[in-house]
Amino acid sequence: MSAKGEVKFIGLVESSGELSRIKIFREFCIGLEGLNNFSHIIVLYWFHLRDNDEERYILKVIPRRHPGAPQVGVFASRSPSRPNPIGLCVVKLIKIEECTVTVKGLDALEGSAIIDVKPYIPRADVILEAQVPEWASRGPPT
Amino acid sequence: MSAKGEVKFIGLVESSGELSRIKIFREFCIGLEGLNNFSHIIVLYWFHLRDNDEERYILKVIPRRHPGAPQVGVFASRSPSRPNPIGLCVVKLIKIEECTVTVKGLDALEGSAIIDVKPYIPRADVILEAQVPEWASRGPPT
Repeated sequence: MSAKGEVKFIGLVESSGELSRIKIFREFCIGLEGLNNFSHIIVLYWFHLRDNDEERYILKVIPRRHPGAPQVGVFASRSPSRPNPIGLCVVKLIKIEECTVTVKGLDALEGSAIIDVKPYIPRADVILEAQVPEWASRGPPT
Repeated sequence: MSAKGEVKFIGLVESSGELSRIKIFREFCIGLEGLNNFSHIIVLYWFHLRDNDEERYILKVIPRRHPGAPQVGVFASRSPSRPNPIGLCVVKLIKIEECTVTVKGLDALEGSAIIDVKPYIPRADVILEAQVPEWASRGPPT
């Protein structure tokens, strides 16, 4: 097996804030059909500002947004500096107009590329009893 | 902005079943430190068998594992045939021994490449009230 793969950017975060606007590129836009029947979606995006050799070699981080967090491995954090600069965020779907998807709660910066959108399905994605270390319960969710 | 990015494979699904064994490649292994303090993790993997032009141009699918599902856009499904063949699965962490992570509930095939591991954090990832169309409540979770 090869050691790498290629991701195509399928869209872009056009504006971010309490509500964020995601523009899906026209060639992929038909893939949104039926998404409006879900109340929440999982957005996978590309931390475009972290896509460089230096940040992609970081394997230990101090999650600074979580006061008192110890240094941990990058896979034990949601840090944007990681071998593959992929962000994951569960958001509320507000509306879809043509190729533009408006969502609430997206933590991606304006200009981030979108690499996938998936429906959020509670049967698969809700783990009520999941436990986290104490530091992860302080500060913002991720 | 460029239209694509490069993902590095950071590991491999060594065996799959009720319990699955993920081998993280030695160079990335230190990134697992502290992950054992989380009970559940999000695994992002690469549908290696779908990484070809034909499957990556599919934008409409019939989710056949869900009886009665209509044709929908690929972003309204968890289908492995999609522009970026990235799978997402929330799993229970059983144990970590050196570079080998044993998990329960991974739906990735043996031989799939791993592209990221993230801690599952209920404050960010649990949406109890999320709603799905009726077809998505039939058949397996995804």
